[in-house]
Amino acid sequence: MPTPTEAVPPRTVSRRLAVLGPGLIGGSILLAARARQPELRLSVWSRAGDELAEVRRRGLADVVTDDLPAAVRGADLVVLCTPAGAMASVAAEFAPHLEPDAVVTDVGSVKAPVVAALDPLLPRFVGGHPMAGRELAGLGAARADLFAGSLCFLTPTDRTLPAAGARVANFWKALGAGRVHALPATEHDELVALISHLPHIVAAVLLETVASAWPDGAALACSGPGLRSVTRPAAGLPELWTEILSLNRSAVASALRQFAGQLEAFAQCLEPGREAELAARLRSAAARRRELPELGQPEP
Amino acid sequence: MPTPTEAVPPRTVSRRLAVLGPGLIGGSILLAARARQPELRLSVWSRAGDELAEVRRRGLADVVTDDLPAAVRGADLVVLCTPAGAMASVAAEFAPHLEPDAVVTDVGSVKAPVVAALDPLLPRFVGGHPMAGRELAGLGAARADLFAGSLCFLTPTDRTLPAAGARVANFWKALGAGRVHALPATEHDELVALISHLPHIVAAVLLETVASAWPDGAALACSGPGLRSVTRPAAGLPELWTEILSLNRSAVASALRQFAGQLEAFAQCLEPGREAELAARLRSAAARRRELPELGQPEP
Repeated sequence: MPTPTEAVPPRTVSRRLAVLGPGLIGGSILLAARARQPELRLSVWSRAGDELAEVRRRGLADVVTDDLPAAVRGADLVVLCTPAGAMASVAAEFAPHLEPDAVVTDVGSVKAPVVAALDPLLPRFVGGHPMAGRELAGLGAARADLFAGSLCFLTPTDRTLPAAGARVANFWKALGAGRVHALPATEHDELVALISHLPHIVAAVLLETVASAWPDGAALACSGPGLRSVTRPAAGLPELWTEILSLNRSAVASALRQFAGQLEAFAQCLEPGREAELAARLRSAAARRRELPELGQPEP
Repeated sequence: MPTPTEAVPPRTVSRRLAVLGPGLIGGSILLAARARQPELRLSVWSRAGDELAEVRRRGLADVVTDDLPAAVRGADLVVLCTPAGAMASVAAEFAPHLEPDAVVTDVGSVKAPVVAALDPLLPRFVGGHPMAGRELAGLGAARADLFAGSLCFLTPTDRTLPAAGARVANFWKALGAGRVHALPATEHDELVALISHLPHIVAAVLLETVASAWPDGAALACSGPGLRSVTRPAAGLPELWTEILSLNRSAVASALRQFAGQLEAFAQCLEPGREAELAARLRSAAARRRELPELGQPEP
């Protein structure tokens, strides 16, 4: 299968977009589309009346509705931005009303369970995951530049039509994504267990360790910039992260075991006489960190 | 003993300051003093001719010398900013040349070994540790606002004269420190093992885990803002951090054990059926993180 980043014919560009669930990610898609693709026709669906009212008030879409069939009618690209647990039931409800060539994608942080649930329901489904976010939730926290320069994963299967993948890849690039990377869903889930879920857990566990070590959280009250940086992702929404870690439990557990093993190896280098090994580990980490891009985006 | 933050008579304010070792911290002291205390007379000592030349070229001090007795002559406050391992020999060399009422402080990240080495040599020594820094080193990385709003620890002993502690506390406040906190040196070292050294290790170990999990560091190349934030301190100078962790090895090992225990407890909550406990841990961490101040400073 060609990767979605290859040159593609014009029909792989979306002209009518439906966003289902205008929260932080869905709302940022609307804002980015308005800013970068003013010709794109936008429809929005939500079950929450206040969310729809805000979309209307801010003029973020052309069609604003709590009627799923009406939201997907005419759309050539449908983006599912609901919590992962709700995606299958929402998809089953709108599937019969899709246009014949409509492509569906989603923005869930864990892909294997979503792909397993949606691929049988939708003829042109491509799982997606933009590596962007904030520690805040909801349309009020949405930003037009949320995806600028970010990495977006796609998880096509053997069944995925190349043109469908290309349409989704082009959509993300048009919203500002710096890189679109296609890989199998299970591989994606192992990867994000390491680069996203493990850092979140490490941040949360570090906070708990520092808070509980001294009475009344007195140690935490002395935090400096290092501790604040390391613990920053832990401010993310607990409900969202409970769902993410539960959906990806096996890969996360494996990442945690790898981390615990590395931690134990590091601890042994603290013993007297092993300063050269300690220095080598710190040099390696410093070199690796300096190769990473700077913090240019809000935290997920 | 009164804490150094109490109201104090005027003689507890420094008028002539000697900075020994104008690197990142020493250089930032010079810049902050020039910006906030233009009346303060500054002398600088270094063994490195290029460092002295840069201090002279930038006009950062009134006396610039590689002669230790000349540097401390006339100074009522001497700030030792050399690496911790060099402090005792430098102190022994300048001690006979100090003015009778001169107070000496230092900026080392670990306090018990420094206090044990310097307190017997210097009649008016007060250990200090500004919780500020950058992942860069040297005078070129120094900043006038490095200490703005930061926390500064002092580690007086039973022998410390209250006026000496007050002079050092006032010095840091005059440079912009938001808070000066006095505590025993061993307590300080246990505290920074938790809030500074443990986060550094966690950042380094996380980088190693992610880098080694996939071939050729492919996982690290997909880093998002969360991983970048959590690993940021690991870019710090390996030589400096090898010294810090070695000097504080016992407290660091204890902090690591506490962290490993909390990590294991968290991992158990990933098992099916324990979602409520998982959610409770994530809620607690999010609440704790949201209570911390935002990242307003460069990383140490």
